[in-house]
Amino acid sequence: MKRFLSISIIISGMFFQSVKGQEKQQIVEDFKPSSVNQPGQQYPQVNSQARVRARISAPQANKVQLDLGGTKYDMVKDEKGIWTGVSNPQDEGFHYYQLNIDGASVPDPGSLYFYGAGRLGSGIEIPSVDQDFFALKEVPHGLVSENIYFSKITNSFRRCFIYTPPGYNENIKTRYPVLYLQHGSFEDETGWAVQGKANLILDNLIASKQAVPMIIVMDNGYAYKPQINTASDKKEPQESVFEEVLITEVIPMIDTKFRTMANREQRAISGLSMGANQTMRIVMNHLDKFAYYGGFSGTSNYPSSDEIDPAKFLGGKFNDAKTINKQLKVLWLGLGTKEPNPFPGSVGAFRKMLDKQGIKYTFYESQATAHEWLTWRRSLNQYASLLFK
Amino acid sequence: MKRFLSISIIISGMFFQSVKGQEKQQIVEDFKPSSVNQPGQQYPQVNSQARVRARISAPQANKVQLDLGGTKYDMVKDEKGIWTGVSNPQDEGFHYYQLNIDGASVPDPGSLYFYGAGRLGSGIEIPSVDQDFFALKEVPHGLVSENIYFSKITNSFRRCFIYTPPGYNENIKTRYPVLYLQHGSFEDETGWAVQGKANLILDNLIASKQAVPMIIVMDNGYAYKPQINTASDKKEPQESVFEEVLITEVIPMIDTKFRTMANREQRAISGLSMGANQTMRIVMNHLDKFAYYGGFSGTSNYPSSDEIDPAKFLGGKFNDAKTINKQLKVLWLGLGTKEPNPFPGSVGAFRKMLDKQGIKYTFYESQATAHEWLTWRRSLNQYASLLFK
Repeated sequence: MKRFLSISIIISGMFFQSVKGQEKQQIVEDFKPSSVNQPGQQYPQVNSQARVRARISAPQANKVQLDLGGTKYDMVKDEKGIWTGVSNPQDEGFHYYQLNIDGASVPDPGSLYFYGAGRLGSGIEIPSVDQDFFALKEVPHGLVSENIYFSKITNSFRRCFIYTPPGYNENIKTRYPVLYLQHGSFEDETGWAVQGKANLILDNLIASKQAVPMIIVMDNGYAYKPQINTASDKKEPQESVFEEVLITEVIPMIDTKFRTMANREQRAISGLSMGANQTMRIVMNHLDKFAYYGGFSGTSNYPSSDEIDPAKFLGGKFNDAKTINKQLKVLWLGLGTKEPNPFPGSVGAFRKMLDKQGIKYTFYESQATAHEWLTWRRSLNQYASLLFK
Repeated sequence: MKRFLSISIIISGMFFQSVKGQEKQQIVEDFKPSSVNQPGQQYPQVNSQARVRARISAPQANKVQLDLGGTKYDMVKDEKGIWTGVSNPQDEGFHYYQLNIDGASVPDPGSLYFYGAGRLGSGIEIPSVDQDFFALKEVPHGLVSENIYFSKITNSFRRCFIYTPPGYNENIKTRYPVLYLQHGSFEDETGWAVQGKANLILDNLIASKQAVPMIIVMDNGYAYKPQINTASDKKEPQESVFEEVLITEVIPMIDTKFRTMANREQRAISGLSMGANQTMRIVMNHLDKFAYYGGFSGTSNYPSSDEIDPAKFLGGKFNDAKTINKQLKVLWLGLGTKEPNPFPGSVGAFRKMLDKQGIKYTFYESQATAHEWLTWRRSLNQYASLLFK
């Protein structure tokens, strides 16, 4: 009898799996509230299979869906009008998601909100094998400061966040190196210190002496000159002036307001996705200002996967390998193993060019993560430990 | 003909007004996006009558409502499935609100989110006559810094925000007075620097020399000892240990980490609603630590409107008028003229006691505001200008 049961379990398990891979595994009932829920909220939850269970009261609704990772999961209503739905297993790390109530896409009232995908929306955290490196621990903590400034270039108020390492306020004679760290497209200056956990990553790295104490500046990568209202309705397509804002406004402001070591050897720059693309251009245009570059899931040949001609790419900036090898103390690239095209293709083409040119660089692969924040947290963790040494 | 038209307009206007006061005025079509919308969002909007127009796409919904100021306004669906609704005129200032979609209460995807009413939810800003005092202007701006700390008392990580005035980082030999500023019930440590605009209020006051440069510390007023799991299901009702956390953990931390003037003459405390109640107890228990108190829409006799016996109230702390008049350099109370009971009653009873005792205090009335953030922004603006002088 016992053997019979075992066989039937195996068969049913095989049946489930044969339908559509792991998605049809039985649901394991060990769900726990997500670590990024609002205080006291029991839903959404995550189980050991990395499934997400969402719940919302909507007694008069006809159809409610959990919209996560590109899939809309139908939720089911109980007799009290409470809808519950469970997703397929998700990748480790942080994901944006939303609920769909009778056609309205809205944030889940249970989760905290994060700026991404061009809006403040829900996020969920799937525990990862290496989550200790970004965990909130009993180590000295730096400050994350909101800094409002007026940009003459954009004629608008802008904002950056500044991480100052533990001890910054007490050791008033110490000066620190600076990392400029940029977000991706449809994200903003809040991303790195909130879902990116840049502050906790650095707190932990500094506490374990894997990184030197540094300041991190996180600005908004979207910057445009004021639109000129012409008589016609035609408006010129806007060209980003982020490079100009960063070089001529932000860096001087930071070097005045904070105790920085204001020279290229003590200044690094990096970004993720769009930010990787932007900051690669910036570093190559200003090798007098930066000695370290990190591209997380992005390069400036994006979105092309074509072979790169170093004589032409970025105005020939990568043509002289000898100079670059001397000037860039760290040239660092990172990518998740599950990233979709065009990222592997364009980063791959860029690496080929570097290899052909004999330009030294570090390449890091984040295992089993896609174009998402766990890839970038891991990238920062690796990259920051190499800086200013 | 002209006269006839005028008369008919007057009559129809009177008709509208006769139905339900101002609510039935014709809607003036001069709506503009709220100043606290998400980037690029056109809705919600506010018009010159202080009405709010909300809009959301929910093609399959049966019923959608705008839930604002205690009233649920039915929204109307157009042929594209987009729902629109307009509220009655609102008080000036900041209000929390939400949308209701077929029974689900959710944040409006158009607005920014604010922690209040026990959750992160939508907010709307109705322009106010005096909004210049909290406007973002071209003046030097201080920093608002997130400070994570571990509390041994609560055995948990906690967080406070710290405003440092313009020049704090540059003038490394200057020390500053400190104001401890607390939020209200169902709010948290984010309230004062986000919807409270404490940083902008101080930036403006300092720029116009109406206030001296000061540090502001905004902590979370909810603090409890760890729950002891007993064998039974019975749990003791939790007693707040916020006073202990503030006095024995937060203040020493701030005096170590920041360049404060660490004495009672250079230390103020205040709070709104629950925070006013808490901080009045704290100041009276620790007159050795604070010389300034501000109670915004709250006092420690809340919610009672009964006559106060100063020999018994707070252990007789207000019995010795002479000592209090000497020790409290500012005793300040503020209240909105539209606040509901029990606030006018309890603050009124407290003032009567002060008057009877001959205790000096300042009373400020915020015109045409209720138990909401414009009352508290104005209170901070008034109170902060009196401190440390």
